[in-house]
Amino acid sequence: MAIDRKKFPPRYRTVAINDDGLESHSYVPGGLDVLTTDPLSDQPGANPEQFVGLALSTCLNATLEAIEKRKGIPHTSQVHTIVEMARDTRGLQFYVTAQIRIPGVDQATAEAMADLAERRCPVAKLLNGSDNVRVELVKEFSPVEAVVD
Amino acid sequence: MAIDRKKFPPRYRTVAINDDGLESHSYVPGGLDVLTTDPLSDQPGANPEQFVGLALSTCLNATLEAIEKRKGIPHTSQVHTIVEMARDTRGLQFYVTAQIRIPGVDQATAEAMADLAERRCPVAKLLNGSDNVRVELVKEFSPVEAVVD
Repeated sequence: MAIDRKKFPPRYRTVAINDDGLESHSYVPGGLDVLTTDPLSDQPGANPEQFVGLALSTCLNATLEAIEKRKGIPHTSQVHTIVEMARDTRGLQFYVTAQIRIPGVDQATAEAMADLAERRCPVAKLLNGSDNVRVELVKEFSPVEAVVD
Repeated sequence: MAIDRKKFPPRYRTVAINDDGLESHSYVPGGLDVLTTDPLSDQPGANPEQFVGLALSTCLNATLEAIEKRKGIPHTSQVHTIVEMARDTRGLQFYVTAQIRIPGVDQATAEAMADLAERRCPVAKLLNGSDNVRVELVKEFSPVEAVVD
């Protein structure tokens, strides 16, 4: 059933703007202003892949931090989100893998926390209809190497 | 049918990291490093809502720019993505509205271009399974006011 949004008014609102395309900048009025560039360019600048990764890493780890706090345990969680871009039969695609590491707790506790974080984090909820997105618990993060053509 | 990713190797790979939760920073090694904070805090810093907005605005406008280029028309497209946070019956939620404005073309052309951009932009593809996400064509952008408690 659709949510009646009037019953649940927004507690926060922001806007992010891009006027000039990929070789320009994207910004939040009065806030973050970031140079952007094509990910395949050698010019400095951020790109949509990085923004997706920053959104998911920040959101999942904020959610994990809240779970740690409620459990009364020290904060040890970390999140690395790997984003790959490929062109496949459905056109240009991003593939997203969020890796969660929680060194301060045992494996079963870590699994339960990672599962809960994936279900609670609003960015993970936005992405969970996509087959291209995975959230996984790791003991060590995968090394991430740049793609060289 | 699932995509055989080996047939379509990634052309780009990046990683975005958050180690210390919401009141810290999120970063791409060797690249963008952004202070982060709770969106409801009065401290300066970006937040997951803003990263989602930056991802979608940048991606949609890069896609629109490519469409303009292929059509041989001047670049006039702009994208504003509004992200709202609310707590509803499903917990914490983000609501995302991307507004596309293309002042340089007539309404029918703008509609066709916005529709194509939504179908092609990889970030829009990642988000299109969510009921919380809308992409709309506008003649003028909505004013975006901060939520005041």
